[in-house]
Amino acid sequence: MEKSLKVHVGPVAPPELESAVLAGGAELAAAEEASALVWFGAEPGRFPELDHSGLDWVQLPSAGVESWLAAGVLREGVRFTSAAGTYAQTVAEHALGLMLAGARQIPAMARADSWQRPEGMRSLSGSTVGIIGAGGIGRALIEMLRPFGATVLAVNRSGKPVDGAERTWPAEDAEGVRRVLTGSDFVVVAAPATSQTDELIDAGALAAMKPDAWLINIARGSLVDTDALVAALDAGEIGGAALDVTDPEPLPDGHRLFSHPRALISPHTANPQSLLMPALARRVQENVRRWVAGEPLLAPVDLAAGY
Amino acid sequence: MEKSLKVHVGPVAPPELESAVLAGGAELAAAEEASALVWFGAEPGRFPELDHSGLDWVQLPSAGVESWLAAGVLREGVRFTSAAGTYAQTVAEHALGLMLAGARQIPAMARADSWQRPEGMRSLSGSTVGIIGAGGIGRALIEMLRPFGATVLAVNRSGKPVDGAERTWPAEDAEGVRRVLTGSDFVVVAAPATSQTDELIDAGALAAMKPDAWLINIARGSLVDTDALVAALDAGEIGGAALDVTDPEPLPDGHRLFSHPRALISPHTANPQSLLMPALARRVQENVRRWVAGEPLLAPVDLAAGY
Repeated sequence: MEKSLKVHVGPVAPPELESAVLAGGAELAAAEEASALVWFGAEPGRFPELDHSGLDWVQLPSAGVESWLAAGVLREGVRFTSAAGTYAQTVAEHALGLMLAGARQIPAMARADSWQRPEGMRSLSGSTVGIIGAGGIGRALIEMLRPFGATVLAVNRSGKPVDGAERTWPAEDAEGVRRVLTGSDFVVVAAPATSQTDELIDAGALAAMKPDAWLINIARGSLVDTDALVAALDAGEIGGAALDVTDPEPLPDGHRLFSHPRALISPHTANPQSLLMPALARRVQENVRRWVAGEPLLAPVDLAAGY
Repeated sequence: MEKSLKVHVGPVAPPELESAVLAGGAELAAAEEASALVWFGAEPGRFPELDHSGLDWVQLPSAGVESWLAAGVLREGVRFTSAAGTYAQTVAEHALGLMLAGARQIPAMARADSWQRPEGMRSLSGSTVGIIGAGGIGRALIEMLRPFGATVLAVNRSGKPVDGAERTWPAEDAEGVRRVLTGSDFVVVAAPATSQTDELIDAGALAAMKPDAWLINIARGSLVDTDALVAALDAGEIGGAALDVTDPEPLPDGHRLFSHPRALISPHTANPQSLLMPALARRVQENVRRWVAGEPLLAPVDLAAGY
């Protein structure tokens, strides 16, 4: 059958996304008539419209797709794109906020009820920042770090040099990853959740970090061993930790990390709902435009790599 | 008498500052033999070495000099220089940390004991930032804001356009100041404490601000009317406030601002002691070099202007 230029937005159809489809040059249509789906508002797996046979392309609403993979939704024969990169600026901004909160001991200040200067004040200026998983978020963060004259050490999948990083190592180079851990004042975890990155930050990685370094996780909770982190904080092996994602997630009520003097829990708010929609709409418009024009889509999901 | 190139550091003489004097090309000497003093480690007024008659120049250790003025230490016939500009980078970094803490609701997160997403998440990206008193700190902050694509509205004494600001108004232009207050998502107070800036942010100024705007004060407590601020927070007239300086300072134990859900008190730590010394030593070296060479000194205190 000839490909229609019909796109379905659902099961929830926010007007911003429908407008984006039209602005991208396609038509809106019911699911059974559409060749493309913009998925919004449903859990992975709960979207029967996916089953129809004329489907060419599905735009997913999140940057990480591990839950769609786990739900068995992603399949050969249909192109899936994630929202990877869409939220890079807002997530990088959150990461910078968490880094500065750590450097300037803002959690301790927020909890204080009297005028006491916290110890361990640091500066981002002139510091060394390790970015493990330096993709779109990492690139946006590197731009934000330029005015601070920070030295960036990067790890990515390929080891291809990241612009603005002093040095880049491939993720498979264990010695390189270790040099990032031992040399950084801030270790920012921004890698996708895959079987290779599961508990990447374990007891050994934490022990390798500088005793005053802060760990920032804005990727996925599975990348950090939570029990090992609590032990490392208690033992003073690292300076502190600011986590936007946790394992388990949500973290149980009253978990020690909520109130640990050198920890900050941000409940998966790096990409808050209020900021998500405009960014997602821009991505949908651009990918619809590319789809209509027959150009390569942004952020295709690589089923083999898992992201 | 011919000017000697002798400098006294005191009453406390950190090795970093003595090294800076030597690196600047002068000799170290006892107070009574020196033509210049690098003042460190004493309260304003408690430094009798100031009285000797051969004194040409005194380098003060702080950026704000209002307490030296109040103590009657500053006088005609001796050149005084402040440390204004020395700490601009580290103070601007703190200001950015407080802004991001406000935008991302980090105080609420730090105080939470369970996984609850706070309301009112904002982004610095694309926001409008008003800087009242855009001098060295303001310029450093503007550089840090560039990656966020923020629009900067500036107020300074002269009204001379500030690089990177969309528009600059002179402080005496009440209508201009009002436009900064009404148009900004973040209002950063960075002006010196003078009789003109006393309670610059009063009830009227707070009422003029956007209901979701954050007030950041990294200048001096006297610039903000504390009671009016508490009332404005309670009434929801502004989004929140992050204060590195307060009136009174220190803020009394248990003051409502310590625990107010939309307030953050940073106990005068924008320029922490641990970061101060290297920056001050660089300034001392440069001003000693200029003094020896007969060049204009950095940050001369203007007795008439009061800073």
